[in-house]
This record gives sequence, structure tokens and C-alpha cells, in this order.
Amino acid sequence: MTEMTTDPVTALLADFVLEARFEDVPEDARNEAHRTLLNWMAVAVGGCQHESVDIVFETLPAASDDASILGRKERTGGLNAALINGISSHVFDFDDTHLATAIHPAGPIMAAILPIAESRPVSGAEFLHALILGIDVTCRLGQSVSPDHYSVGWHISGTAGIFGAAAAASRLLGNSSEQTRWALGLAATQSSGMREMFGSMCKSFHIGNAAKNGLMSAMLAGKGFTSSEQGIEAKRGWAHVTSTKQDFTHITNGLGEKFLIMENSYKPFACGVVVHPGIDGCIQLKNEHGLTPDDIESVALKVHPLVLELTGKTAPRTGLEGKFSIYHACATALQHGKGGETEFSDDAVNDPVAVALREKVSAEIDSAVPADAMRVSITTRDGRVLETYVEKALGSLENPLGDAALDDKTRDLCRPMLGDAGTEKLIETCRNAADLAEASAIATAATP
Amino acid sequence: MTEMTTDPVTALLADFVLEARFEDVPEDARNEAHRTLLNWMAVAVGGCQHESVDIVFETLPAASDDASILGRKERTGGLNAALINGISSHVFDFDDTHLATAIHPAGPIMAAILPIAESRPVSGAEFLHALILGIDVTCRLGQSVSPDHYSVGWHISGTAGIFGAAAAASRLLGNSSEQTRWALGLAATQSSGMREMFGSMCKSFHIGNAAKNGLMSAMLAGKGFTSSEQGIEAKRGWAHVTSTKQDFTHITNGLGEKFLIMENSYKPFACGVVVHPGIDGCIQLKNEHGLTPDDIESVALKVHPLVLELTGKTAPRTGLEGKFSIYHACATALQHGKGGETEFSDDAVNDPVAVALREKVSAEIDSAVPADAMRVSITTRDGRVLETYVEKALGSLENPLGDAALDDKTRDLCRPMLGDAGTEKLIETCRNAADLAEASAIATAATP
Repeated sequence: MTEMTTDPVTALLADFVLEARFEDVPEDARNEAHRTLLNWMAVAVGGCQHESVDIVFETLPAASDDASILGRKERTGGLNAALINGISSHVFDFDDTHLATAIHPAGPIMAAILPIAESRPVSGAEFLHALILGIDVTCRLGQSVSPDHYSVGWHISGTAGIFGAAAAASRLLGNSSEQTRWALGLAATQSSGMREMFGSMCKSFHIGNAAKNGLMSAMLAGKGFTSSEQGIEAKRGWAHVTSTKQDFTHITNGLGEKFLIMENSYKPFACGVVVHPGIDGCIQLKNEHGLTPDDIESVALKVHPLVLELTGKTAPRTGLEGKFSIYHACATALQHGKGGETEFSDDAVNDPVAVALREKVSAEIDSAVPADAMRVSITTRDGRVLETYVEKALGSLENPLGDAALDDKTRDLCRPMLGDAGTEKLIETCRNAADLAEASAIATAATP
Repeated sequence: MTEMTTDPVTALLADFVLEARFEDVPEDARNEAHRTLLNWMAVAVGGCQHESVDIVFETLPAASDDASILGRKERTGGLNAALINGISSHVFDFDDTHLATAIHPAGPIMAAILPIAESRPVSGAEFLHALILGIDVTCRLGQSVSPDHYSVGWHISGTAGIFGAAAAASRLLGNSSEQTRWALGLAATQSSGMREMFGSMCKSFHIGNAAKNGLMSAMLAGKGFTSSEQGIEAKRGWAHVTSTKQDFTHITNGLGEKFLIMENSYKPFACGVVVHPGIDGCIQLKNEHGLTPDDIESVALKVHPLVLELTGKTAPRTGLEGKFSIYHACATALQHGKGGETEFSDDAVNDPVAVALREKVSAEIDSAVPADAMRVSITTRDGRVLETYVEKALGSLENPLGDAALDDKTRDLCRPMLGDAGTEKLIETCRNAADLAEASAIATAATP
């Protein structure tokens, strides 16, 4: 029931993804792609022992053992691997973020294309290029419907992510232009996932489901399964059905020249970004003044209203609840000088030192403080008042996580699964991905 | 991110589905369930050779061969069977219809619960009861968001159907109340499928996908995969995210007393319902007056505007296009005295007799004619003017397809796959489903 349209963006994106050449991707975008790749592999390996991963692995029968489950010895079929690896990459909420849309872009794409690289010859450059192109598709589509689409309740990482997965998979599977339009239509008509699920296992499920269904879309379309060829822009297509806003200039402007992977960011801390300036400020003051928990009399924060709306939990009982507590976040940062997954574990949240510290933290709304900033003021037992204003926290676009810090984040996440040498091998493999003869080496390096 | 709500319909539906007793289902609803079962099995078997079924079967690897593909000798795994059988049941658009919502309710449920009955002991009564309960869930949810949800572009047979599939599967898998709430949440967050896809293979895909994902939701929830427990009614739950209307009295009123399967209908003709009064009228006049194509000088229809909007195609070239041509529909009815799948085949549409006849058919909009009625006037070569006004076409709730006609429809659809004896066996098995010791006999009877 296709309607006429003046903006055939489904066809435009299909052709863009198929016709793009890796040599046209600028050096800085390739470099960012290596960072996106490493960060994502690290969080996927780090999350691999989560209960939700176990349940899916044990419940859904596998059609083969062609594909790796990242971080684990078990293997499964390609579609199941896409689902499982997508889930594990998001369970810590520690994956990459396209801040303008709140999309975690790598997950659906990476989880969809890894099994492809394990089942047919794909070079490292082809693989990295597919990731870059997929992120462009996901983030451009996300921008075209933002913020309305997210505001109404769609979990945009899944709903937009399935398009990036279908597009990247179509490229690696060798789909034709028509088949890629069908794949995008199949993606449109499976796009799903609601913010209501936040706080349950379904949040991560959305990432894996987008990967699995995006991959399936590309596979079916490649064998002739038809859909609308205007699944995105038609009057009853995705952009209109799921959003009150459609601005396709976000899709068309600079396509092939400006790569949105350049806007990708990596979290230094394993929690939502509104808390990051507080953790950053506490770590800065701790390091600068050599503070220990015993030195702290009180911590006073001045914050944007959103901080208390999203993370105002004063007495968290679990690691997950700790991620929604600005009080625990600052306490654990002052205690450990870090804010990784370990600092948001059940143990860390119930540690008496952390509990005592968080009771000394107060937060006051200050409408002059932007949502991505925070004022941190620490009073010490010996009467000093130490202050900092964090305008752009570590991990923001303006103050990105450095390469060395990204390697350290990878080490924290991966050593328990891969060991020290295995973790260094994964870092090296991801850092040199474009030069790999076989992209399957990436998955291999991420398994014990 | 669950919000408070005064209408916990997710929990209400979960408990309803788990606590209902077959002995409380009135005789007429059980009888209707047998008819729904037979009609659905017939269309699923009839559609089993469609190209879209072949593509899915050949493209998606199977994890086992536990489950039947209806109408075919090949076998597959349970989740793939749910997808494939759901698709085949809708390819002819000849399945059951809940007219108030335009939902085809049986497909997602039947395709989800058949593989369960093939993998564990399920009695015929338990199976039929799960179908009845699933249809109640699907149609009540559909009504609660109708017509807004469909109007904005959602293909409600899939988007609401996944809930019925998850609910019925949860019952047969023995899920707890909490697990069933999770299953409904998993269904909510996978609900998808857009009307934009009509005319492509994706339309039938929606039915199969709802079956597969509804079944997967029940499986995962049964093993502890969590979701929101207010996936339907929460502020950012399914009803609010996908519709501007939410009227949960359609869910709560008469739950457990009034069974919506009583509102299910079965098509006598293999095309959209707006055309049915025309076909019905032409067959009536043909039979009454013994008309042959040579007798016809002209056919004049008076129709509701919707008829020409939806089925105004004057020169169809394929069977599928023929379904969107009121001209072909009346011509083939006058030629053959039927309107089954054969009368909407490519051959039937390109038959010179049908082509000549359809050029004699004219349709005029008459705002006094309701959408479900039609005035048919045939002028014969010998100058007679034969007229009928079809107020309630065969297959409507007021003029339902009789049991004998349903058996004949089954014969037309199934004999090519199952043979004469096999088809009679299927009819007998479905007609006596509630008395079966093992519901797996239903799937067995539907395979060659």
C-alpha cells in the first residue's frame, strides 16, 4: 500500500550502503571505528556471564555451532549468536552512545555482522566498513525522528538499530539494491522495543533482538522475500507510524561525506551519562588531594533537575539500583577512584564503607547547571572545602575517553573471561581490524 | 520504568488465561472454536506451497525436526514452524476475521501452539481452550486500541496477535502468573508490523512473526527472563505507545463470561471482505437463473465508496491483483459460481472468458449502500434485468459460513496437498478436537 513520496530515503540508504567505498572513509572515521569496535567487544565480553545471557542460551535451541558467543566457550547458530551477543553487550549499559539521539549504535550492527564474518570470507576492512555504514544508517534514521520517537516511548537503540543491522548485513551478504530495500522494509516492519522495559532484562533484549531480526531481514531479502520498498518514508511507513516528527534532511545531508561514527562516545563509567560529571569530579578531587573515605565530612552536589529525576535513589540495594543513585555513584567513586562495572556490583553497593559515604552526599537542584555538567564540593574532616565544576565529563564528545583509558576499560571487563594475554590479544586484534585478512579473527580473539 | 496505573490489565489477562477452566466455556463457544480450528488448518495447508513459505524454509536453519510444516512433508524446529505455518495461513488472505477490529485472530495463536503440542503432551481440550483464550486476549486488546491503532498504520493482526500467542503458549507451557506477565511484556516489546507492507510477502510474515515471537516470549519468560509487568497499560507501554486511544473496558468487561471467539467469521471467498457482497450476489443470480458467461450483456453494481477505493483495479494481471478488483471478482463468480483461491489464481485472472466478462462490469458509488452491502443488477443478452440487494453477505456474522460450506472450503484448499482421504481425516480430526487425547494429532492430520 505504498504512497507516493518525494523523499525515497529507503532506496537512497540502500544504494549508499551498497555503493560506498572504504577508501572514501576518512582516516579519522576509520580510527573512530576501531575505537567503537574495541569498546563494543569489551562490553560484550564483560557481560557474557549475565543471567539473561544464560537464559537465552539455554532456552532457544541452536541450529548449528557456527558462531561464537563472545567471552564464552559455548557456540551457537548465527541468529542465536546475534541475539545473545547483542544482549551481553548492553547488560552493563556500558556500551557506546550517540549522544544526540541516546542511541547505542554498535550493538545491533556488531552482533549481526560477527556471525556473518564467521560463516563466509569477510576481510577486516570490509567488516569495519560495514560497521561504519551501519552506524550511519542507524544514527541518521534516529535523528530523523528524534526526539519525538524516543519521547513517546520507543527504545531507539533497538527501533533504529535494526535498520543499521539489516543494512550492514545486506552489504556483507552481497544483497542487490532491490534486496537491500526489502531488507530495510523487513527491518521497518519488525522495529520494536519500548522504554517501559527499562529496569528489566528486556532492555538488553532489544539490542540483541534488533541484531537478530536485522540479520534475518538481510538473509530473507537476499533470497527474494519481498517487502515495501518505501518502508521508512511511506505514509504508513516506519517514520510516520512511530513518530510525530520526520525530518529526512538528517538522512540526506552529507550522506557519504560526514560519518556519524565521529559522534560516537564511550563511557568511562558503568552507568547513565547524567551521573558521569559527578563521578568525574569526585575522582578528580580524590586524586588531586589524596582523599580516603575517612577524610570526607560531606559531599554537596549542584545538579540539573534531570539528575535527581533519573538517579535520585537514596538507598539502593543492588548494583542495578546503584546505577540509578547519584549518591552511590559519588560514594563509590570517592572510595575506589573508579566507576566501572565492579563499582556498581551488588557487593559494592552494599559495602558498609560505600553506604556510610553515600549518606554524606547531598544533591541540590541548580537550574544554572546544564544536564551534562555538575558542581562538586567536598568538605573534609579537617575543615577544607574542595570544589570543582565539571563542565564536560570524561567520555563526552568534547572530552573523549582516551585510547589508554579505553584499553584499561577493556582490561577491567575482559580479563575475568579471557585472561591477561587473551585480553591483550583482543585489544591488538581490534586496534588493527582494518588490516585483518579474515574478520572472523575478531570473534576468535574474544573467546577463551 | 513502570508508572502507577489504575488498570493492571497485563496482570488481569495473565491470571485470566491461567485460571480459566474449559468446563466454564459455553457449548456455543466450543463449537465456534472447532470451526475456527478447521478453517485455519485448511488455509494453512492450502497456502503451504507459496513462494514465501519456500524462502523462509530454505533460508532459516532449523534447530530440530520436532515440528510439522502444515501441508508438507518437510519438518523443522518449533520456532521456525511457528513462523512458517503462520505465513502459509495468511498468504491467501482467506483466514478467519474478527470483523470489529479487522484482526485475523487464529493465525498467531495456532501457529504458536501447534509446535508445543508436538513437543509435550497436550490434550485436545487443553489445546482448543488455549485457542479460545488466546483469541480473547488478542481481540480484547485489539478492541481497546481500535480504531486508532490500525488507522495510524499498524497491522493489528500481528501487533495484537503476538499477545494472544504469548498468552496461549504460556498456558500450555505451564508458566506461572509472574512468568505470564513477563511473557506479555516480552510480547509488548516485540509487537510490530505495518500496513505499509500490504501487497508484499511481509503481510503474511506479520502473522508468522507474531506466532514465533509470541512463542519465544512464553519460552523465555518461563525460564526467568524478566520484563515490565505492566507492558500493556503503563504510561510508556504498548497501548499508549502504539495508539492514541486506550479503552481498557474492552479488556475487563465480561472477561471469562463473554468469549470473543463468538465474533469470529470465516471467508467463503478468497479476497477482502468489501468485495464479498458482490461475489455473493453474482453467485445467487447465476444459480437462480442458470446464467452462463454467454448470457451476460452487462453487470451494474451500486457500491459503498470504500469498495472502489480498495478494489478499483480495472485490469488486474495477477491473481493477487485480481483480489483488488471488484470487476474480476464479479466476473470470476459469474463464470465459476465460486470465489475460492482457484478463482483468484493468475490463470483465472488471465482467462479470456473472465477478461471479457469483467469488461462488462461497471460499478457506481451509491452513498446509501453500506460498506458491507451491495446492489447487483445483471442485464442478459435476451433483455432481462436480474437484480439482488445483498445486505449481509455469506461469511458475515449475520450470515455465517455453514458447516457444510466450511467443509467444502477445506476440501478445495487441502485436497491438492493431502488427497481426498487425508482431507476428510483432517476435517474429522478438527471437528472432534476437544475429544483428542493428544492434540498433536491435529498437526499430523495436516501433513501428507
